[in-house]
Amino acid sequence: MSERLVVIGGDATGMSAASQARRHKSPEQLEIVAFERSHFTSYSACGIPYWVGGDVEDRDDLIARTPEEHRERAIDLRMRTEVTELDVAGSRVRTRDLESGAESWTGYDHLVIATGARPVRPPLPGIDAPGVHGVQTLDDGQALLDSLSALERTDGRRAVVVGAGYIGVEMAEALLHRGYEVTVLNRGEQPMATLDPDMGRLVHRAMDGMGITTVGSSTVTKILTGDDGRVRAVATDDAEYAADVVVLGMGVEPETRLAQAAGLPLGTYGGLLTDLAMRVRGHENIWAGGDCVEVLDLVSGRERHIALGTHANKHGQIIGANVGGGYATFPGVVGTAVSKVCDLEIARTGLREKDARDVGLRYVTATVESTSRAGYFPGAAPMTVKMIAERRTGRLLGVQIVGREGAAKRVDIAAVALTAGMTVEQMTALDLGYAPPFSPVWDPVLVAARKAVAAVRAAGV
Amino acid sequence: MSERLVVIGGDATGMSAASQARRHKSPEQLEIVAFERSHFTSYSACGIPYWVGGDVEDRDDLIARTPEEHRERAIDLRMRTEVTELDVAGSRVRTRDLESGAESWTGYDHLVIATGARPVRPPLPGIDAPGVHGVQTLDDGQALLDSLSALERTDGRRAVVVGAGYIGVEMAEALLHRGYEVTVLNRGEQPMATLDPDMGRLVHRAMDGMGITTVGSSTVTKILTGDDGRVRAVATDDAEYAADVVVLGMGVEPETRLAQAAGLPLGTYGGLLTDLAMRVRGHENIWAGGDCVEVLDLVSGRERHIALGTHANKHGQIIGANVGGGYATFPGVVGTAVSKVCDLEIARTGLREKDARDVGLRYVTATVESTSRAGYFPGAAPMTVKMIAERRTGRLLGVQIVGREGAAKRVDIAAVALTAGMTVEQMTALDLGYAPPFSPVWDPVLVAARKAVAAVRAAGV
Repeated sequence: MSERLVVIGGDATGMSAASQARRHKSPEQLEIVAFERSHFTSYSACGIPYWVGGDVEDRDDLIARTPEEHRERAIDLRMRTEVTELDVAGSRVRTRDLESGAESWTGYDHLVIATGARPVRPPLPGIDAPGVHGVQTLDDGQALLDSLSALERTDGRRAVVVGAGYIGVEMAEALLHRGYEVTVLNRGEQPMATLDPDMGRLVHRAMDGMGITTVGSSTVTKILTGDDGRVRAVATDDAEYAADVVVLGMGVEPETRLAQAAGLPLGTYGGLLTDLAMRVRGHENIWAGGDCVEVLDLVSGRERHIALGTHANKHGQIIGANVGGGYATFPGVVGTAVSKVCDLEIARTGLREKDARDVGLRYVTATVESTSRAGYFPGAAPMTVKMIAERRTGRLLGVQIVGREGAAKRVDIAAVALTAGMTVEQMTALDLGYAPPFSPVWDPVLVAARKAVAAVRAAGV
Repeated sequence: MSERLVVIGGDATGMSAASQARRHKSPEQLEIVAFERSHFTSYSACGIPYWVGGDVEDRDDLIARTPEEHRERAIDLRMRTEVTELDVAGSRVRTRDLESGAESWTGYDHLVIATGARPVRPPLPGIDAPGVHGVQTLDDGQALLDSLSALERTDGRRAVVVGAGYIGVEMAEALLHRGYEVTVLNRGEQPMATLDPDMGRLVHRAMDGMGITTVGSSTVTKILTGDDGRVRAVATDDAEYAADVVVLGMGVEPETRLAQAAGLPLGTYGGLLTDLAMRVRGHENIWAGGDCVEVLDLVSGRERHIALGTHANKHGQIIGANVGGGYATFPGVVGTAVSKVCDLEIARTGLREKDARDVGLRYVTATVESTSRAGYFPGAAPMTVKMIAERRTGRLLGVQIVGREGAAKRVDIAAVALTAGMTVEQMTALDLGYAPPFSPVWDPVLVAARKAVAAVRAAGV
């Protein structure tokens, strides 16, 4: 007899799960119904800043697979359909057609919750004024581009970005590319709170050098509007910043209101808690993945919320394999993230100093300056690598890198080393690729590891 | 009482060992005498192709530390002095001053053998003719540049490179940059014998596209000279290739004639055999490292000879620490190497198919085509990743990558995974850096790992 898989959310996790399950089971064995409330499926939200900035020309380039392509794979995809209630006891979901308003119930044998994350949007006065934009969805991106187009007919070229995390700094670059005078307002002292402040300072300085004004330790209190109702300025607790357009990049939180109402288990950050097979804890036939779940941080042993497309895709594959009768697990993350602002590359993996302290680890740090290529090779660019290692054991805890070309993906070396539980001493012997166009004879990561070894020794037992 | 350390060879290993030993011990505790037969110390031989090609302007840029700088660190460095005999029983070396011809004996308490490698140079007719050049030393590089300068006054612009390994392909690029019509003659079917032939074929095709003619399966039989005695052509078993200049890139072999004469233990490839502390086996006070030793391949469990500056530097550090009374070891290598020909990047680590067969391993392979960045991001370049995994266990055995920007250093992911003994299934869950300018949402290495997992499963037990 045929079973039914219901998927809530038509982006990376949901549609990867659906596709993968379909590979395992025929339409006769498994009916697959997926609900998506927006107009789009399977798109790269991470690409939105580059579309707004003009690096990517066409919105459709960001769409990995259209609704039609999914339907060709025998997935019954219902667009513009929101799931409004989850009845766990009855194994069914209530949906509403956002066009017609029609509601109905759909039963499931297996359920995948892939509801993603929603942007943090505090209820500040004026936050809904025309000219204030989020950049979470393709619709958000289009609205921002429309706003920028309208500004082209004026001489308004002042942009304020609220938040200096990944989205904030990427949007700063995008707006700079569009010819805007960009101010980034940041709650923390330094941009990129995912780095330690000493490394964030390097980002701050580099952004200064690009002509992006970054204001740290500033809390936005309201958005001021003009007589036409449009945004006019952003007010913080101690200043006002004139703005023709405002972009919000204040982070995201798991979209789990549906799951919460249904009594499913949520973690510290409001994300769904799953087992290693991505099954919602305590629920044999409910799965969840992507931006709406918390993941195990293999370094700290704690659950974290990390909204990142690469995890969402992995989760989808794993869920699909398991629903399809196969077997796959997601062991956890080490917290790797890379980004750029113009030609500045920023990378991190593992724990920051603060994270280490928070879980009771004692540590040493080592920071080195090196170059991306042999020092004598044209294009050799400076690179700062900070390494954090546990005291006594010397176990690698985290790495942060700020530099130019070749800086970001070097963090993968540390990501694999963290996964393997290596010590910094073991890392000094790593057989990394060396040739003058690609690395100094001692790769910057090796230089940092050597210094970290010395720091571990100096700290004693 | 003061002890004496004698170092044979003033390049990476020898002078790193000397400097590191000096950091541990004062001149009162340890006298350090180093003998170097050439005019130079501590230079980047790997940089020579880029100096010849014009990327690096000045020879001195390749010199990391001059004789004077070493002497300032209280190292008694004797340049142009060759060690002609090693008397192990008497703990002394005989040296000859290459300027004056004077000979003398110097006793040692500790000896470091860092004699490097010598280029393979078969006794072919004409191989010593003017216009035929090796590129092993700075003197070689200067002689080649002088030869090219002389040719600038003629219309001779045909270069033949013998050998298509790292040096061969890098010299092909260098000569192409200099405006030469370049032909590379290669004994194997495909260039880059450090890759499997299927990956070598990609390099071949790319070199064709750059206008470099690569002739495979050709054995050079003699160098033909003109009436002026200069090189005129290179003859193989079945053809003749006109040449105004010839560069030999036929590989290197350990320079261990001195050690051999002294009865020190050599391995299959003629390199010195050491223990993990880089001590010559069976000799408490003799150390060796760099291009004159064999190293343990952690994947195959066999000794290999790999001439590479990054290992030489590590060895020097380790020897210096141990001689200085500290403790350090070199666990071995996984065989990582990266190179480029113009904008083509080439990388490998671990075992080739042939290597796996040679040590009795059964394996599966997976080859994927992916891109360096998100497909929609400007500059996304194709990349081919081949992965080799052990049958049944799924243990990673090797990775080869051929692509453009971002291809070479991606191999470091696999280098660390090999060191950690990961399976390809473990690799599919690696938390690698993802952002559209740096990687597709599935990094090419992850895509290859997923395909390798499927291959392992399909191969069964």
